[in-house]
Amino acid sequence: MSDWVNRRSWLKDLPWPASENAVSPLDTAEYELKAFFAARTDTAACQLVPDLKEGYELTKTQNGFLVRGGKTGVLYGAYALIRALSSFSPVPEGVQQPYYPLRMLDCWDNMDGTVERGYAGRSLWFEGGSFSYEPARIRQLGRMLSSVGINVLCLNNVNVHQPAQRLLDDLLEDTARFAALLRPFGVRLMVSVDFSQPLQQGLGTADPLDEEVQRWWADTAKRVWDRIPDLAGFLVKADSEHRPGPNTYGRTHAQGANMLARAIAPYGGFLVWRAFVYNCMQDWRDTKTDRPRAAYDLYKPLDGAFDGNVILQVKHGPYDFQVREPLSPLLLGMNSTALALEVQLAQEYTGQQIDLYAMPPMWREVFSQMGKERVRAVAAVSNLGRDGCWTGHPFAAVNLFAYGLFAWNPDSDPAAVIRQWARLSYALPKEQETRLSDMLLRSRSVYEKYTATLGLCWMITPNTHYGPNPYGYEFQAWGTYIRADRNAVGIDRTAQGTGYTDQYPSALRDLYASLDTCPDGLLLFFHRLPYDYRMRDGRTLIQRIYDDHFEGCAQAEEMANALSGLSLPAPDREEALKRMERQIKNAREWRDVVNTFFYRYTGVPDAHGRTIYP
Amino acid sequence: MSDWVNRRSWLKDLPWPASENAVSPLDTAEYELKAFFAARTDTAACQLVPDLKEGYELTKTQNGFLVRGGKTGVLYGAYALIRALSSFSPVPEGVQQPYYPLRMLDCWDNMDGTVERGYAGRSLWFEGGSFSYEPARIRQLGRMLSSVGINVLCLNNVNVHQPAQRLLDDLLEDTARFAALLRPFGVRLMVSVDFSQPLQQGLGTADPLDEEVQRWWADTAKRVWDRIPDLAGFLVKADSEHRPGPNTYGRTHAQGANMLARAIAPYGGFLVWRAFVYNCMQDWRDTKTDRPRAAYDLYKPLDGAFDGNVILQVKHGPYDFQVREPLSPLLLGMNSTALALEVQLAQEYTGQQIDLYAMPPMWREVFSQMGKERVRAVAAVSNLGRDGCWTGHPFAAVNLFAYGLFAWNPDSDPAAVIRQWARLSYALPKEQETRLSDMLLRSRSVYEKYTATLGLCWMITPNTHYGPNPYGYEFQAWGTYIRADRNAVGIDRTAQGTGYTDQYPSALRDLYASLDTCPDGLLLFFHRLPYDYRMRDGRTLIQRIYDDHFEGCAQAEEMANALSGLSLPAPDREEALKRMERQIKNAREWRDVVNTFFYRYTGVPDAHGRTIYP
Repeated sequence: MSDWVNRRSWLKDLPWPASENAVSPLDTAEYELKAFFAARTDTAACQLVPDLKEGYELTKTQNGFLVRGGKTGVLYGAYALIRALSSFSPVPEGVQQPYYPLRMLDCWDNMDGTVERGYAGRSLWFEGGSFSYEPARIRQLGRMLSSVGINVLCLNNVNVHQPAQRLLDDLLEDTARFAALLRPFGVRLMVSVDFSQPLQQGLGTADPLDEEVQRWWADTAKRVWDRIPDLAGFLVKADSEHRPGPNTYGRTHAQGANMLARAIAPYGGFLVWRAFVYNCMQDWRDTKTDRPRAAYDLYKPLDGAFDGNVILQVKHGPYDFQVREPLSPLLLGMNSTALALEVQLAQEYTGQQIDLYAMPPMWREVFSQMGKERVRAVAAVSNLGRDGCWTGHPFAAVNLFAYGLFAWNPDSDPAAVIRQWARLSYALPKEQETRLSDMLLRSRSVYEKYTATLGLCWMITPNTHYGPNPYGYEFQAWGTYIRADRNAVGIDRTAQGTGYTDQYPSALRDLYASLDTCPDGLLLFFHRLPYDYRMRDGRTLIQRIYDDHFEGCAQAEEMANALSGLSLPAPDREEALKRMERQIKNAREWRDVVNTFFYRYTGVPDAHGRTIYP
Repeated sequence: MSDWVNRRSWLKDLPWPASENAVSPLDTAEYELKAFFAARTDTAACQLVPDLKEGYELTKTQNGFLVRGGKTGVLYGAYALIRALSSFSPVPEGVQQPYYPLRMLDCWDNMDGTVERGYAGRSLWFEGGSFSYEPARIRQLGRMLSSVGINVLCLNNVNVHQPAQRLLDDLLEDTARFAALLRPFGVRLMVSVDFSQPLQQGLGTADPLDEEVQRWWADTAKRVWDRIPDLAGFLVKADSEHRPGPNTYGRTHAQGANMLARAIAPYGGFLVWRAFVYNCMQDWRDTKTDRPRAAYDLYKPLDGAFDGNVILQVKHGPYDFQVREPLSPLLLGMNSTALALEVQLAQEYTGQQIDLYAMPPMWREVFSQMGKERVRAVAAVSNLGRDGCWTGHPFAAVNLFAYGLFAWNPDSDPAAVIRQWARLSYALPKEQETRLSDMLLRSRSVYEKYTATLGLCWMITPNTHYGPNPYGYEFQAWGTYIRADRNAVGIDRTAQGTGYTDQYPSALRDLYASLDTCPDGLLLFFHRLPYDYRMRDGRTLIQRIYDDHFEGCAQAEEMANALSGLSLPAPDREEALKRMERQIKNAREWRDVVNTFFYRYTGVPDAHGRTIYP
């Protein structure tokens, strides 16, 4: 790797390479400040204040700045100072503390080098069944994560494929070496484990109440933490999408999670239990069963039954990272359970790092609805890979950057965060910087219009999850239906329908259940409506569907224009333009396919005479 | 392998193993007759009559029979005699000659051991990038092929994946050894080659008019035929589904094929050129372009331009092995080109060797429409694999058996052929044999009713090609549309529509173009009709769609009943019952999904009040 990869990130102003000799975050902080201030007339110094822990305080001195902070806080402070100065932003005042103690990046990297739902090339650290990486690039990764406050990296796919169990077994030494690379940046490792692992180790069962199983996990934990004492914990997905779990043995998820949690509790480890669990063999004929209900129905009765070091990791919506979903009711209903909010930086359903999709506006909605005090941790599925620019599309880096800042402070302003990323990454003329920031700020709304208007998600091509296929998931077992017919479309999820709205606290329940108040963006998620239904603005439902698709596509074309006028550096400019061409093609396909799909049901032409293919 | 595999075939009465010492088909004939007649009181003798070539004549002698025949004819005669005696059928009288000189089995085996569209397990002869097989099992395969007159085996996938070029290169010795195993059974090898191979050998081009390219192929042919003098030829798929070909260099398919044909002509090799070529990037918005037209539009102008040893291999229908298609107009329009008819034993779209689907009734239709004199060769995509019963479903063997008999005599009677297979394979009580034969005889019609009524093909799940997904291919680039809307369904392919019917001779053109005469089974393939269209029997189109789906499913359920009463041997019985359970499930899914699909467009309930899910 060369300086080139460093320059393709928001850290481009920091001299490469990062220190190879740093052992602690304080070492790194001192190194980074020295390097950054070397080119300036003022100076900066660090001071360790253990009580501040992850927090820091920046103060002005006669010649420059003093960074006071806890063990990792001092490093976060150094980066915050550098970020503010580089972007000509005000230096934050007073003590800064992160809102969520755990700010995780979940990497779906497989040991064969592939990345599940990865759109930025192959794994940064696995290849051919074992570790394979450039230490310099991993240090650079640690620096990027640390610079925005991410403090845990889960290094392997939560769908644990063979031979990932080796990470804690004969490859433990390699895992420890990898952990050591990230330690000077305050980033701790987490490992995804396979609940059924004892079975593969020759035990006859993986039953969490079996003493031998419990002993096996306790022994494993001891061996692992002996070697990596600051390991953050284990991440587990069980009983989901055909994977084994406690239900296999007639045990609850609490019994399953607690067993593992107790094995790692002596070392301060967290057991993160992924709540993405539902009956994935739903029958489309059955209109009573409703997949969005599944997680709440399963976990709500277990509220309070989890041990203190268990964290239930819940996706932001009740489905699966769609463009727009209501907040998962589980995030509002589990009052006696530690929760982690999970978002997905990898753009599985949101454009695959080809189409522009900046997530901060979405997160703002999520945090404001959730009441940020409800959850204890945040986790994001990584959008990283071995590509030169780290994230496939160079602009997709904004999501990693912004995720860190929102995880630190969920009250962050999406526009300000996006603008800061743009300034740090490109230093464009002010007018161009505004254009780029605005484009990113509205990119989600554009993508939403042409792919998922009114909450109609799942019209996407099965398996690949890119491009339109409005009925591709309609008769599948995943519970993902839109139920369009010649008269109406959407699902009634009120008390008269599947009853999903009853899982919400009453204010939200009433908001969603009433046609007078339900937000347009979720209208067909919560309601089944005829095509001639009058929207609040007077348009018919079918016309609104057409309009959104025409507008979304036109707005994508406007973005293409705006983009071509930006004086971005090479190769980012060429890369962004190339991907924008694909986005335009994708947007047109969505527009025409979805409009035709509904035209064939309704026979209603566009009120403005635009082309809808028959 | 043990005798067990032998017993799971129509050769179960022949003692295992086949001779290891036979060198010529005559050796094999003598060995087989000796072994078969050892258990009888009469006898049989062989006599070589070179002039008969592949033909034979069976005559009664005082103590038994005399088999007179040509070099391979004598072996075919021996098997015909054994087949007749084993099935208590009359011994054929007079000289028997095969109708088609080339009777090919195209195997889509990849060298990594997978079989493209294979439903009977892994490859019988490839694994891990090279040959890997039990010689005894390959001899048994040769025996099965020979026993029904198949005389060419193309051993690798026509989509030539790396490292299959090694078959003619550093693995040539292994290929020759494999050819030698099949030679005593009169089965000659053919090899699929990659048109772009010269490129990968360091030449800068694969242009068929380039002299260096021509020399490279001539040298290759010399080297190969030196080692395998009876190699049947090369099979090629070029310029199709993103594969390179002569068009890449601005040359015609005739120029491409002839170049290869000239390289192998000195050795008597055939160049089989697969005519499965079309623009696979069609736009669904474009209603003028019509994929079924593609092959005729491309090849008709080349009629007469191909060398004498080129054979154009044409699929039976203009699409791709659907349950029901009209005959490919290419098979009727190429008067100065040698043609091979291609069928697919592998049940890619026809139930995947889970659902019952016996093909003889379909072939009868094809041969009777085509006029059997039009084509010079037949080819079938193999349904074989490493499974114990060879064909996944034990009954799927009927298609391999019957294919051989139809290739020998296209006037064969489907019912008689199916019955003979049943008798040779199972020796059931007469009433049960009738039940099994009847079940197989009507199995295609049952499958057709629940998957592809009225010529509505392509409502199948994309990629996997099993199970319903009525709109899965609707907006794709493959040219496979049904264009259903709230008023009508189907494609007008008459002169008023895409003009496809004009590719037929006038009698067929008129038959298909007129609603008065177009067969019901192809009605919506050729015409676009409103749902309230009155069928000739008085039913509406929509009611006919519903009826077929209810009936097809009910008939599948009847087959399940019939099957459970058959005293088949283990493990065939269990295997057949297990698969029948899956067929029933599949049939119900098709019935409900397709009925619902059209109900959602029409709002018309079933006239008989049967359940259609909303």
